[in-house]
Amino acid sequence: MAERSALIANTGLAMRETGHFKVLAGWRNELYPVYGPGGELIFNMERSLSCLFGIVTYGSHMTAYTRNAEDGTLKFWVPRRSYSKSTYPGILDNTVAGGLATGEVPFECIVREAEEEASLPEAYVRPNVKAVGVVSYFHIRGSRAGGETDFLQPEVEYLYELELPKEIIPKPSDGEVEEFYLWSIDELMAALGRNEFKPNCAVVFIDFMIRHNILTPENEKDYLDISSRLHRKLVFPTGLLFHEK
Amino acid sequence: MAERSALIANTGLAMRETGHFKVLAGWRNELYPVYGPGGELIFNMERSLSCLFGIVTYGSHMTAYTRNAEDGTLKFWVPRRSYSKSTYPGILDNTVAGGLATGEVPFECIVREAEEEASLPEAYVRPNVKAVGVVSYFHIRGSRAGGETDFLQPEVEYLYELELPKEIIPKPSDGEVEEFYLWSIDELMAALGRNEFKPNCAVVFIDFMIRHNILTPENEKDYLDISSRLHRKLVFPTGLLFHEK
Repeated sequence: MAERSALIANTGLAMRETGHFKVLAGWRNELYPVYGPGGELIFNMERSLSCLFGIVTYGSHMTAYTRNAEDGTLKFWVPRRSYSKSTYPGILDNTVAGGLATGEVPFECIVREAEEEASLPEAYVRPNVKAVGVVSYFHIRGSRAGGETDFLQPEVEYLYELELPKEIIPKPSDGEVEEFYLWSIDELMAALGRNEFKPNCAVVFIDFMIRHNILTPENEKDYLDISSRLHRKLVFPTGLLFHEK
Repeated sequence: MAERSALIANTGLAMRETGHFKVLAGWRNELYPVYGPGGELIFNMERSLSCLFGIVTYGSHMTAYTRNAEDGTLKFWVPRRSYSKSTYPGILDNTVAGGLATGEVPFECIVREAEEEASLPEAYVRPNVKAVGVVSYFHIRGSRAGGETDFLQPEVEYLYELELPKEIIPKPSDGEVEEFYLWSIDELMAALGRNEFKPNCAVVFIDFMIRHNILTPENEKDYLDISSRLHRKLVFPTGLLFHEK
C-alpha cells in the first residue's frame, strides 16, 4: 500500500508541475483514503488530487445554534470563509467543518475543528455535540472550488449538531473564518436562496430543515426527491478506516 | 381516470374471486393513488391490490416518546398490533401509523390516526407533532404480511415525532392495537434484535436512532449504507396529490 500511495503522490506532483490543473495549486499535504470494494484501505491520495480522480471524500459538518429560552426560536451560527482560502473564498459555510484525512474518526474531527476553527471549548463540545445523520451525494465542483472546469465529486458528510448557550460564542481562531453571524432561519434561507453558501454546506442546512419540521411534505413539493438525493447510494467503494477488519 | 380506476377495481375483484391471492382476502375498500411520470395521478387502486402490482405505497408514521425531566432519558410508546389484524397480527408497530389513501395529506393523516388508534387528543397532537423526514425503500412482504409468498414492495413513509408529557398516555381505541408499552431504548433495541417489529416500523426506529445520536458513525460500521438504503431513489413515479399541478 505504501508503494501505491508513493506512486500516486509522485504522479500528482508531476501533474502539478505541468501547471495544467489549477486545483493542484492548493496542494494540502493531507492524505485522503481510497477504499476497495470491501471497505479496506487500498492507498492514500493527496487531498487536492482526489477530486481529479473522482475519489469519494469524507467530512464532518456541525451546525451550532442557540435556542431562545422564551419561545424556543433557533438562531444559527454561520461563518463566512476567509477571503484568503484557495477554495470558496468569502463564501458562507457550516459553523464548523473539516475533511477526514486517512484514519480520522468523524467525532474526533468535529471536536478538534470546533476548537481550531471556532474557538469552541472541547470541554463543552465533547459531551454535548450530537451525531444526527450522514448525507451522501454528487457535488458539482466548479470555479468557486478553485478549479478551472466543472466536475462531479462524490462526497459523504457526517452530520453533527450543537446547541450553544448564549455565553459561548464562536470566534475565528486559525484564519479559516472571516467572521461569524448569528442568523434566524429566515435570514439563513434568504442567503441560501441567493446561492451564498458553499454547496456542500447548503445541503447540510437543507437536511437540518427536513429533520426539524421547517421543510415538510406539505410546504415542499420535492420533499421526497430532496431526501433521496441527499442520501445517495454512491457507486464507488466507501469505508471508514477504524471499522476495517 | 375514473374509467381506468374502475377497470382496475373489476380486475382486482375477479382476481380475488379466483382465491389464488391470499393477500386479497384482506380487501380494504381504500383507494391508493398511482402516479404517472410527472407526479400526476393516473388512477386509483384498491389498497390490498397495490402490492401485487408493485405500486409505491405511502404512509405517515409517528414515534411518540416521553423525556425524563431529570436526566433527559427517552422512553418510547410501542404498540402491539391486534391479534385480529389481517397483516402482521400481534407484531410490534410504531406508536401511530396509517396508509395514505388518495388525496390524504400526510400531516392530517397522522393527526387523525393518533386520535383513532391511540386516543391522543387532536388538541395536543396538532400543535406539537413535528415532521422529521421521510424514508423510502423496498420492503420484502412475506407470510407475516398476509401473503403466501415474498414480494418486493416499494414504500414511502413520512416521519413524525411527538414528545408526550407523562399525563398523556396512548390507549387502544379502534381495535387496531392490543396494548401499548413504554420502553427504554435498550428494551426497544432488544425487541428489534429479536425481529419482533413490523419491518417497515423497524426502519422508522432505525432512522430515529440515526437522527438522535444513538447510532453513530463510530458504533455502527454500516452507518452510511443504512442511511442510503433508508432513502432510496425509487425507480417508479412518485407524487403527492395535493402538490399536483
